[in-house]
Amino acid sequence: MVYTKTQFVRFTSALILKSGSVLPETTVAYETYGQLNSNRSNAILICHAFTGDAHAAFFHEGDTKPGWWDEMIGPGKPFDTDKFFIICSNVLGSCKGTTGPASVDPATGHPYGLTFPVITIHDMVALQKMLVDHLGIERLLCVAGGSMGGMQALTWAATYPDAVASAIVIAACHRHTAQQIAFHEVGRQAVMSDPDWQSGNYYGHSIPKRGLAVARMIGHITYMSWSSMDKKFGRNLVGKNVSYNFSKEFQVEGYLEHRGQTFVDRFDANSYLYLTKAMDYFDLTAEGRKLTDVLRNVAQDLLIISFQSDWLYPSDQSREMVRALKANDTDVSYIEIKSDYGHDAFLMECPDQARAITNYLAKVSFERRET
Amino acid sequence: MVYTKTQFVRFTSALILKSGSVLPETTVAYETYGQLNSNRSNAILICHAFTGDAHAAFFHEGDTKPGWWDEMIGPGKPFDTDKFFIICSNVLGSCKGTTGPASVDPATGHPYGLTFPVITIHDMVALQKMLVDHLGIERLLCVAGGSMGGMQALTWAATYPDAVASAIVIAACHRHTAQQIAFHEVGRQAVMSDPDWQSGNYYGHSIPKRGLAVARMIGHITYMSWSSMDKKFGRNLVGKNVSYNFSKEFQVEGYLEHRGQTFVDRFDANSYLYLTKAMDYFDLTAEGRKLTDVLRNVAQDLLIISFQSDWLYPSDQSREMVRALKANDTDVSYIEIKSDYGHDAFLMECPDQARAITNYLAKVSFERRET
Repeated sequence: MVYTKTQFVRFTSALILKSGSVLPETTVAYETYGQLNSNRSNAILICHAFTGDAHAAFFHEGDTKPGWWDEMIGPGKPFDTDKFFIICSNVLGSCKGTTGPASVDPATGHPYGLTFPVITIHDMVALQKMLVDHLGIERLLCVAGGSMGGMQALTWAATYPDAVASAIVIAACHRHTAQQIAFHEVGRQAVMSDPDWQSGNYYGHSIPKRGLAVARMIGHITYMSWSSMDKKFGRNLVGKNVSYNFSKEFQVEGYLEHRGQTFVDRFDANSYLYLTKAMDYFDLTAEGRKLTDVLRNVAQDLLIISFQSDWLYPSDQSREMVRALKANDTDVSYIEIKSDYGHDAFLMECPDQARAITNYLAKVSFERRET
Repeated sequence: MVYTKTQFVRFTSALILKSGSVLPETTVAYETYGQLNSNRSNAILICHAFTGDAHAAFFHEGDTKPGWWDEMIGPGKPFDTDKFFIICSNVLGSCKGTTGPASVDPATGHPYGLTFPVITIHDMVALQKMLVDHLGIERLLCVAGGSMGGMQALTWAATYPDAVASAIVIAACHRHTAQQIAFHEVGRQAVMSDPDWQSGNYYGHSIPKRGLAVARMIGHITYMSWSSMDKKFGRNLVGKNVSYNFSKEFQVEGYLEHRGQTFVDRFDANSYLYLTKAMDYFDLTAEGRKLTDVLRNVAQDLLIISFQSDWLYPSDQSREMVRALKANDTDVSYIEIKSDYGHDAFLMECPDQARAITNYLAKVSFERRET
C-alpha cells in the first residue's frame, strides 16, 4: 500500500474573483504523486468533480479505501506515477481543506457562510494556477478532469494556453444548459428550504441534513443511467413483500437514502450551493462570444471523452466542443465510450477510458520531448 | 363557451383494495360531456394523469381556463362530444373531490392523513368501474389516458376486457422502472422531510409548502425534454446581468419556483405521496407474470402512443407493450410522435396525437357498429 498525505499552502496575496469580489487570503489543500523531473516538464494537474477532494490516489493512513481516482492514477496506470508528477487540489468553495464558505473569515473570526463571495469555475482555475506557480511549474504537460473537473480543464486550456500543453475534458461541456441549471436549482432549493439551513448560518448548530440529503438524492439519479439503475436495482424489494406503506421498500429507495445520509456527514451544505452555482455560471460563450473564437488560442492539444449513457452531460455537448476545436484546426481527439454507467462512468473501472488516456498521454509527452 | 360542472356520487358499498384494506365508503368526482346514445355504446372514459382532476374539458363558470384536455375533447375534436359520451373522474387518493387522504374518515370524523390505506392503479380503476356501472354503461367504447392515465387505461384493458372495447395508452408503461421510482421517492422525501408535514397530520395547520414545492420542481424537470427546456429558457437571465448571489437569476429557476409555488396551493401533499406510490407499485408483470400472459385476455383493440423526446416514459417502454400485444395477435396500433415537449407532449397542442386518436376512434366505433 502506498500512503499519501494532503498538504496545504496558504496564499496571502489577494485573489480577485470574476464577480469583482476579493478574497484576501486563501488556503489550498493538495496532494502530489510521483516525481517532478529535472526540467519540470512532466506535471499533470487532475481536477476533481463536484464533491471530490485533493485525495485522488493512494491511501491515507488508516483508510481502507484509496483516493477517488485511484483506478486511474498510480504506477503503470494511465496517469502513471512512474512517469508523471501528478497534482490534485481541492477546489475553491469546497469544504475539503481549500477555502470555502465553511472557512473562517479572517475579518470576522467566524465562518463565512453566505458572506463568502459567489465563485466561478474560472476562479477555481485561477487559484489552481497560483498553486502550480507555487510548485515552480511553468507549463503543465496536461490538465485533466471529468464533469466539473472537465469544465476546469477546458477553462485552463482557454485561459492559460501557454501554461498547459494539453487537456483531457471528460463528460463535461462548455456551457451549462437549462436542464443542468434546473437540476442544480432544485438541489439548492431543497437545502435552502430546510429550516436548519438558517440562511447559511448553521455552523456550530444543527446542519440542514434533510435538505442536503434530498439534494444529493436528486444528484445521484442524474449521475446514473436509466439502464444502470434498472440493472442494479430493477424493482427489487428490500424485504420479501410489498409493505403497502411509505417505508423504504424498493432497493433503489434504500440506496438513495443511504447515499443521502452518508453525504451529509461528509459535505458542507453551503459548499453544495456555491459549487453548483459555479457550474451553473459556467459558459465559455457568455456575452455573445463564439465558441470558435473562445477556443482559438487554446492549449495545443485536447482529448475529449464522453459516455453514451450519460444523459446529464450528453455526448452532443462534447461534440459541440470538438466541432469548434476542429474548425480552429486545433489538435483534438474525441472518443465516445460505450458504457452503461451514465455520468458516473468516468469514475468507474473503464478500460476504454484508461486506454484512451494512456495513449493520449504517450503522444503528448512524446511530442513535448521532441520540442 | 360551453359550461360544465363537476358531479359527485357516493358509494356506500365497501371498496376492497389490492392491499386487503377496505374503504367503507367512497365519493367520486366526475364530469361528463356529450350524450350517451340509446344503446349506450358511445361512452369513453378519460383517465387523468398524476395531478389532474375530473375537469377535463369545457369551462367551469367564472373560469377563464378550460379543463386540462380541452384541446382534445369537444365538438369536432378527437374525443368528439357530438359523437361520444365522455366521462372523466378524479382518481382515488387524489384531492379533487374523490376520496383521498385529505377526506374525512367516517370512523373518526377527522381527515385520514396517513391512516388512509395505500392504493394502487388497480384500485383507482376498480372505483372507476363502480362509477361506470352506476352510469349504466356495460361496455365502454374506449378508455384513454396519458402517463398515470395510460397506466389506468392499460389496467382497464387487462382487468375488465369485456367492459371495454378499446384502449388508448399514451406516454405510459406496464411497469415502473428503478429510475421512475427513484424520482418519485426523492419527491416523497422532500415532502416528508418538511417539518410542517408532521407525519401527515397537517390538516388545519401549516401545510408542508416548502417540501411539496421542491417535489413539484423535480417533477417538472422530468416532464420537459432537454431541448424544450433549452429552447424555452436557455441561459436567459431574469434581470440584465448575473447577480452573483443565490437569488433566482436564470429564467428556468424562476419558472420552477413559480411551478412549485402555484402547486402547493392546488394540491394536497399527502395525495402527492399516495399517487406517486400507486405509480411505483404499478407492475403488470409482478410476481413473475409474463407480459404476454397478462395481456392475453386484454381489450380487443389498443392504440399505444409515445413521444420521441419523453425520457421519463421512453418509447422503449411503449414498444415493449406493443411487442407483447403483437405476440398475442391483439389488434394494436403504435405511433411514436416526433415532439420536442418531452413527457408533457400529450397535454400540449399536438396535431399528430389528435389525428391518430381521431382516426383510431373512427375505426373502433365503426367496428363496434358492425357487430
